[in-house]
Amino acid sequence: MKIAILGGTGSIGEGFALRWASKHEISICSREVDKAAKAAGEYTGMLLDKGVLCCGINGCTNETGIKDVDVVVLSVPYQGVISLLKHLRPYFKDQIVISLVVPMKKNTWFKYTPPKQGSAALEIQEVLPKSVKVVSAYHNISAKKLADLELALNYDVVVCGDDEKAKKTVMELTHEINNLHPLDGGGLASSYMIESLTPFLINLAIRNNLSDLGVKFV
Amino acid sequence: MKIAILGGTGSIGEGFALRWASKHEISICSREVDKAAKAAGEYTGMLLDKGVLCCGINGCTNETGIKDVDVVVLSVPYQGVISLLKHLRPYFKDQIVISLVVPMKKNTWFKYTPPKQGSAALEIQEVLPKSVKVVSAYHNISAKKLADLELALNYDVVVCGDDEKAKKTVMELTHEINNLHPLDGGGLASSYMIESLTPFLINLAIRNNLSDLGVKFV
Repeated sequence: MKIAILGGTGSIGEGFALRWASKHEISICSREVDKAAKAAGEYTGMLLDKGVLCCGINGCTNETGIKDVDVVVLSVPYQGVISLLKHLRPYFKDQIVISLVVPMKKNTWFKYTPPKQGSAALEIQEVLPKSVKVVSAYHNISAKKLADLELALNYDVVVCGDDEKAKKTVMELTHEINNLHPLDGGGLASSYMIESLTPFLINLAIRNNLSDLGVKFV
Repeated sequence: MKIAILGGTGSIGEGFALRWASKHEISICSREVDKAAKAAGEYTGMLLDKGVLCCGINGCTNETGIKDVDVVVLSVPYQGVISLLKHLRPYFKDQIVISLVVPMKKNTWFKYTPPKQGSAALEIQEVLPKSVKVVSAYHNISAKKLADLELALNYDVVVCGDDEKAKKTVMELTHEINNLHPLDGGGLASSYMIESLTPFLINLAIRNNLSDLGVKFV
């Protein structure tokens, strides 16, 4: 498949590029094409050093990156994502959009602050063309651990989405990452539950002197 | 310590009685004292069969059971808990009350339906005397697994409460149950997060053909 990563130069974007590049063509997307190209080169080098053959990682602008791909990974902060997607709307057709987006604020502790639609995923689906299939996943995967290819990620990933075929594709992509285990979380209306776990996990980690917490349902 | 279990004849109540009886005096409380006494006898017999010495398990009414104990476990359904506690209010003084209560409804799927206070734990604290210390925990522990003494419960238990000393007591009680691992979840205001995990876990289990799901933060 062709996978575009919006926010591909960020740490969680790096992890997905490294984990999926051996089977899929990856576009690292950024507003600054130079930065995207530099990151793409670095990721390719890192994989070559490990003896991993890539299908190709290229750097490009957001606009060119998301056109004609199968999957767009939205690994960008909530602040700014809606205006970014409104701007990019003409370049969307029928891609699967994987939302990792979590609206949250920090006072003393982190707090989930969903928009009026109920979750970031529902708001994102509203902004994009109806033919685009939004799937919500990976909110609680540590960027640091994802980018460490030696690490088997022994976590569950709850996947929510209204299009069963798109959800299945994302569950298969999840299976391709060493030890990640996808679980069907139902429709997009359930996304608030997995989004709200993120501030909860961050607070839990801080309170109990832990770090990079993930979840396992056992 | 002296521990009273409201709803002690139910399956989750049974589990706590069996797990704590070797170190603590347990009162099994029920509206029907005969039922409570019968359950207390059965639990004592089950432990004796396994060669476990009890500090004593006795059956009693709710009113006599909760008087003069250190800890009251609220293992009763949300429906009816507030009127029960209003009725029992004169028998409360300064006990620690552990709330396992989850307000939820089932349509096609289970849904968390918190009261206007934000969570069952906050509503319960409002109904009880201020000197009573409500601590929220154990919502996501399987009754079946808890009652199976052969089983090491490899789960995390997030504990929320405003009284640090009471929260510490509950975390220590958690440690006494084989392999359960307590985590500090902050104040009672955070209880909605752990309460809302329960319907989420039930739905997840149904959708993915799993059962008795618990949570581990790793």
